[in-house]
Amino acid sequence: MTIPPVSLKLSDERLRVTFRLTGDETEARVKAEDICIEQTVEFPAHLIESGDIRDKIFGRIESFEQADATAFTAVISFAVEITGFELKQLINVLYGNVSLKPGIRVQRVDIPDLLLSSFRGPRFGVDGLRQLTGIPDRPLLCTALKPLGLSAEQLATQAYQFALGGIDIIKDDHSLADQKFAPFAERVSRCGEAIRIANGETGYKCMYFPSLTASPDTLISAATMARNAGAGGLLISPGIIGLDAVRFLAGSDQVDLPIMSHPAFQGTFVTSVDNGISHGVVFGLLARLAGADASIFPNFGGRFSFSKSECTEIADNCLAPMGNIRSIFPTPGGGMSLNRVAEMRATYGDQAIFLIGGALHEGSGDLMKNSRMFRRLVEQGD
Amino acid sequence: MTIPPVSLKLSDERLRVTFRLTGDETEARVKAEDICIEQTVEFPAHLIESGDIRDKIFGRIESFEQADATAFTAVISFAVEITGFELKQLINVLYGNVSLKPGIRVQRVDIPDLLLSSFRGPRFGVDGLRQLTGIPDRPLLCTALKPLGLSAEQLATQAYQFALGGIDIIKDDHSLADQKFAPFAERVSRCGEAIRIANGETGYKCMYFPSLTASPDTLISAATMARNAGAGGLLISPGIIGLDAVRFLAGSDQVDLPIMSHPAFQGTFVTSVDNGISHGVVFGLLARLAGADASIFPNFGGRFSFSKSECTEIADNCLAPMGNIRSIFPTPGGGMSLNRVAEMRATYGDQAIFLIGGALHEGSGDLMKNSRMFRRLVEQGD
Repeated sequence: MTIPPVSLKLSDERLRVTFRLTGDETEARVKAEDICIEQTVEFPAHLIESGDIRDKIFGRIESFEQADATAFTAVISFAVEITGFELKQLINVLYGNVSLKPGIRVQRVDIPDLLLSSFRGPRFGVDGLRQLTGIPDRPLLCTALKPLGLSAEQLATQAYQFALGGIDIIKDDHSLADQKFAPFAERVSRCGEAIRIANGETGYKCMYFPSLTASPDTLISAATMARNAGAGGLLISPGIIGLDAVRFLAGSDQVDLPIMSHPAFQGTFVTSVDNGISHGVVFGLLARLAGADASIFPNFGGRFSFSKSECTEIADNCLAPMGNIRSIFPTPGGGMSLNRVAEMRATYGDQAIFLIGGALHEGSGDLMKNSRMFRRLVEQGD
Repeated sequence: MTIPPVSLKLSDERLRVTFRLTGDETEARVKAEDICIEQTVEFPAHLIESGDIRDKIFGRIESFEQADATAFTAVISFAVEITGFELKQLINVLYGNVSLKPGIRVQRVDIPDLLLSSFRGPRFGVDGLRQLTGIPDRPLLCTALKPLGLSAEQLATQAYQFALGGIDIIKDDHSLADQKFAPFAERVSRCGEAIRIANGETGYKCMYFPSLTASPDTLISAATMARNAGAGGLLISPGIIGLDAVRFLAGSDQVDLPIMSHPAFQGTFVTSVDNGISHGVVFGLLARLAGADASIFPNFGGRFSFSKSECTEIADNCLAPMGNIRSIFPTPGGGMSLNRVAEMRATYGDQAIFLIGGALHEGSGDLMKNSRMFRRLVEQGD
């Protein structure tokens, strides 16, 4: 049965997605045309008669040009209405089925205001986090409580020393969930208390971001419990609990905590230049749209393999104007150390959170002293 | 500060993960050793004194051997306790941070019974779905309502014809969310009703699986609404709403519906032989562990690029014994047509669901007639 002409009331606003398509011109053109169908009707095009499904629901190739010797760049637009104005379906339109087809990479996403305005985005963003930490203009300092296997008490001792040393945000290592050696409730309570006491001594406003790994039915109660126990924010891995769970928490009237996103389990989106989604879209645009106030990513030259330009692409996507959506803190980390601070400052400027983890245990091994050195290095850069 | 010796009460049960590590022997060995740290303590190993963190929390290389000219295979074991006995943290241990490091691929996962028994897995599985559909031994027939852009009424007309034609499971296309041209509530209600009426005429037990794209706070209410409106199951994309949301729904006492998982947004896990997670683990083991009763994946030789052996690896992971976890239906689809049925039968045998979508609109274009031909082809194979 062919699909008869349908008339649909749709706006003229279209989501624009820039794809990198591997192959020669013919192959890349076939991919572009395929995306128009695969990401929308997923149906034999020849069976759809003229009308609004063909004219408006099909993706539309807006431009097509050679990118480099092995690939072409196509901008394909989609009617905003096919997203249903929700994040889950937006993700599906961007890269749902074509994630299963090789040689297609989402490079850039341009979301019109009509669609952006359906999202609340981050509750705090750069300005809100600066207000909460009381740090008006320099980069914020962040570290992590670790390793997995320590007790809640031992982690709290670390938290106290880091806070005395002037760290702005102390997060759990993302490996800390609800293991019996340091259960979530006890850990949050002890670490929250340790940081509160340290703040009383220093006058600083250090914040604690425990790692939240709750389930759909316990997200709100776990976040509320964390807040009541002294958490100032939450560390969440959208790759694991889902971008929509981040959106839900960031938009909930029942929780009033900033969110720092962690990149765990999201690596395969960016490992190939031919497939996946660009670093800037995954760790910048999508994290921000979902409502993260800060987005952790592996800095170049550390334990991971991102390049400098991939990292600055992330920072750009965190900070560039985006309609009603607040800008957020790019948070480079992953094998960073004190001797990288000047280079990080040169790369990211002031609108960033610098995350140094294990390295603060090196050298003298005095966490307070090392944290003070970290703070001095950043303040000196002012 | 070095980490002092810690004594931990842990079982001897260990999760065993088989990794493919790209590189020569030295490079691959470095990767194996790195995984032991990166996926657990994520901390400078030389700062951790002897004791149970080093002896039990660190990953342990159980075997290491050449895989082929460009890679080695390492089995690395982890204490089950570091998963906190929950799916989210298990995923994190399997492939959280190392997803961000190139040249590491999860090939196989062996979960000891102590950990498996923390999971309920699928509520129905193969046996349960056979009971619900009343089909004791042949492959089940599945199709999809599409294209996006039709009204709920038009989709219900399709559903009625498919059901009359003898399709066992009619699912929404995964692109159908809550768009205004066919809102979720109206669509479920109309299609559920159409299939109920058709079942009254045929005596069959055709089931409707609407696409569920609810948020953490609406998962239960949307599923319940769907059930009350006549849905017999749910289509869910774990890549988009999260594997843990599937686990939550499959285990909830408030929802009693089978779940079919859709592979959208999960493609980059499997696009590279050097990175990611094997097809069998993503679309077999993880979908099943989370609680999907059937797992859709792109069959070889269709619109997508999976090979035959990648597809049978998925089927094996759906069906092989797995402690207390029920076996589930491999559900090959994606550009399938009636002339592929015999080959699908030869490949997958009887324990499968065959998904044919757009192709049922081809030929005569009579959905009922084409569905009857689909059913006859499969029944003839008996």
